[in-house]
Amino acid sequence: MIYANYAATTHVLSPVVVKELRDYVSAAHLNAARNFEGLEAGAITLRARRAVAKLFGVADPLRVILTSGATQSLNMAINGLASPGDHVLATSVEHNATARPLECLRKCGAIELDWLRCEPDGSLDPQTVRKAIRKNTKLLVMTHASNVLGTILPVAECFTIAREYGIRTILDAAQTASGTFSIAFDKSALGASSLAFDKRRAIQAEGGASEDGGSGSGGSERAGPGAAETDLGGCCDVMAFTGHKGLGGLAGSGGFVIGEDAAAAMRPWIRGGTGSVSDSLDMPEFLPDKFEPGTQNTIGALGIAVSIEEILRGVVEKIREHECKLTARFIAGLRTMKKITIYGTGDAARSVALVSIVVEGYDAGDLSRQLFEKHGIITRSGLHCAPLAHMTAGTYPSGAVRFSFGSGTTEGDIDTMLLSLARI
Amino acid sequence: MIYANYAATTHVLSPVVVKELRDYVSAAHLNAARNFEGLEAGAITLRARRAVAKLFGVADPLRVILTSGATQSLNMAINGLASPGDHVLATSVEHNATARPLECLRKCGAIELDWLRCEPDGSLDPQTVRKAIRKNTKLLVMTHASNVLGTILPVAECFTIAREYGIRTILDAAQTASGTFSIAFDKSALGASSLAFDKRRAIQAEGGASEDGGSGSGGSERAGPGAAETDLGGCCDVMAFTGHKGLGGLAGSGGFVIGEDAAAAMRPWIRGGTGSVSDSLDMPEFLPDKFEPGTQNTIGALGIAVSIEEILRGVVEKIREHECKLTARFIAGLRTMKKITIYGTGDAARSVALVSIVVEGYDAGDLSRQLFEKHGIITRSGLHCAPLAHMTAGTYPSGAVRFSFGSGTTEGDIDTMLLSLARI
Repeated sequence: MIYANYAATTHVLSPVVVKELRDYVSAAHLNAARNFEGLEAGAITLRARRAVAKLFGVADPLRVILTSGATQSLNMAINGLASPGDHVLATSVEHNATARPLECLRKCGAIELDWLRCEPDGSLDPQTVRKAIRKNTKLLVMTHASNVLGTILPVAECFTIAREYGIRTILDAAQTASGTFSIAFDKSALGASSLAFDKRRAIQAEGGASEDGGSGSGGSERAGPGAAETDLGGCCDVMAFTGHKGLGGLAGSGGFVIGEDAAAAMRPWIRGGTGSVSDSLDMPEFLPDKFEPGTQNTIGALGIAVSIEEILRGVVEKIREHECKLTARFIAGLRTMKKITIYGTGDAARSVALVSIVVEGYDAGDLSRQLFEKHGIITRSGLHCAPLAHMTAGTYPSGAVRFSFGSGTTEGDIDTMLLSLARI
Repeated sequence: MIYANYAATTHVLSPVVVKELRDYVSAAHLNAARNFEGLEAGAITLRARRAVAKLFGVADPLRVILTSGATQSLNMAINGLASPGDHVLATSVEHNATARPLECLRKCGAIELDWLRCEPDGSLDPQTVRKAIRKNTKLLVMTHASNVLGTILPVAECFTIAREYGIRTILDAAQTASGTFSIAFDKSALGASSLAFDKRRAIQAEGGASEDGGSGSGGSERAGPGAAETDLGGCCDVMAFTGHKGLGGLAGSGGFVIGEDAAAAMRPWIRGGTGSVSDSLDMPEFLPDKFEPGTQNTIGALGIAVSIEEILRGVVEKIREHECKLTARFIAGLRTMKKITIYGTGDAARSVALVSIVVEGYDAGDLSRQLFEKHGIITRSGLHCAPLAHMTAGTYPSGAVRFSFGSGTTEGDIDTMLLSLARI
């Protein structure tokens, strides 16, 4: 069995993660509670925030908001930042996690919406952004890399242009938030201006007297004003990530990182108990409580924390190196075969570790099923929840077969997959 | 150490749940994927739906929508059902998971909102509902039992009145969705009219060709039209539940059960990839996909499934019996002490297994801390994310100390707690 669907989800947790999660579910007082120091939930979520902050170079862990994944994060950011009358831009390779919330706002007349047209290989000229800007353009939403074409988009350049015009920016990092993030993204889109530690907002939560449904963030456990400030020189307001792909955690975990200025402007989209300012029927204004009502997914946070800590113990650069090598090898092999069309740039250096193909004479679903049933290769066929990307590539509505690679993929796997394709 | 904060969260998973969760995190292909039959995610979420449906007497497991918990469920139901110009009713003992989303809609002018005034002990005359109804009243939101006072509200009666007027109903079952649910609630608020299996809507999902970010519900795994219909004779449109309290699962899991008619009327509040009708930028109309975009929290679903299966293997009635006995014993013991005010009805039969008290001369937070530090008793103090309930009871803003009991609580624990209070 070869797993080649890393772009959808990681399929095996690392032994270190397995160990800590097993310990967690076995422990007494495991979910227990938010009332006293020393209990676990708040410490675990803070551990996750710190790990995420460290990986992405964010000075303040409280700017890391935990959610049920990139889909919820994008819904929160889009609905929390877009206002009636706004003109919003997004690219023509967005996933439905971005496209569907935006299209809903457009349809009900709340916003005007334009899709920035990417080339068929998924690439985008940053000046496309400048040309599309109108007087009422207020928001630019971009995926960091297409989940269909693999193509890495010039987000830093596009966001820099957006910022010139005072336009807020949301990054969908579902495909890139991982050990490869710091390479592909070069940390340059997460800006000091938005993410630097803000002393005024820290540690405003209630101390001992917390309540039901609180976020478990544990006021006294929070990073204090001593946290170092970093200057990343970038330009992103919200970065949405998921826990279960490149970050190596559990399905149903994830979150977003938010800049100071955007955090103040963004309306809470989900509201409820936070264990803080409980006398008020408004959400608290401080982070992370403003965006984290209800009881948090503690085991999900633990998975993210342990996995990222492990990533950080290694040489992060090697992950991207490994994935580039695999992708290049796969593309080179595909090029020797007839009847195969490769989508995306065909250049591993400009792509994340995924390749979508169409084989002449084969329906994508049939090919994917045949690869699984006869060759034990798990791929993903269809429209990959990204019809816009397939329209951009010219593979709509028939779709394509996507191979995506990760930490567990070997060069031998690549060769086996190529051989299987050659046989078919 | 005595754990008396079950109303916030269960603190230990049962050994059966621990075993299955440990196996889950250890397994290869654990999150893997949504593309082929036999892979786990879809089977696990279906297992959870079936367990929830069986416990609550719902014929169609696809009417069980999985979310990150009761808070998200209530946000989805409130924002998905309330429309501009609607008059909405809710009780004066609602948790902030209901109060904050409603108050937000009221403040922005979208709805008119009235709080139905409960008695100081949390009880409510159902005719209060009738008196509050106006021409534009469209929605009634009620908690099943107050998380502060323990008082079980007459939801079936109130919802029956609401239905006379065509008013939709949302039940917050955070405190009651458990093995005790079928007793306290008598299944009468979950109606055949709204929850009976609807053949037209079943199995519309795409089969083999699924996509990224899909719900993992696995079209071919769904309950077919052969599923039995049940007649519950009740009247609830949406019932929100959480996985980590009475249901014995993990924090960050939960969902809601929705009636057929409400499912058609309710707008999706979170949008994204569903692995179905991926060519459309609208959400699918069928369940569960309409309300389940993105990758689901599979381990959370597994926790719910295994725990409920265990509950159903036992005698469900015994859970409620056990809890009533503990609550009555605790109240009787408290009544022998001076300087203690008991909130709620003081009647275990009309209450879930929690008791809130104020001790003369003691700040609630201090008392709770002292119980923990000197006596190893974990309670919850403050406003319990329910300021309205404390206003109703007359304990706002100083709060109270809440003792709440569950499956692990013994009569010996009750006596120890009483002794500790007597010493203080």
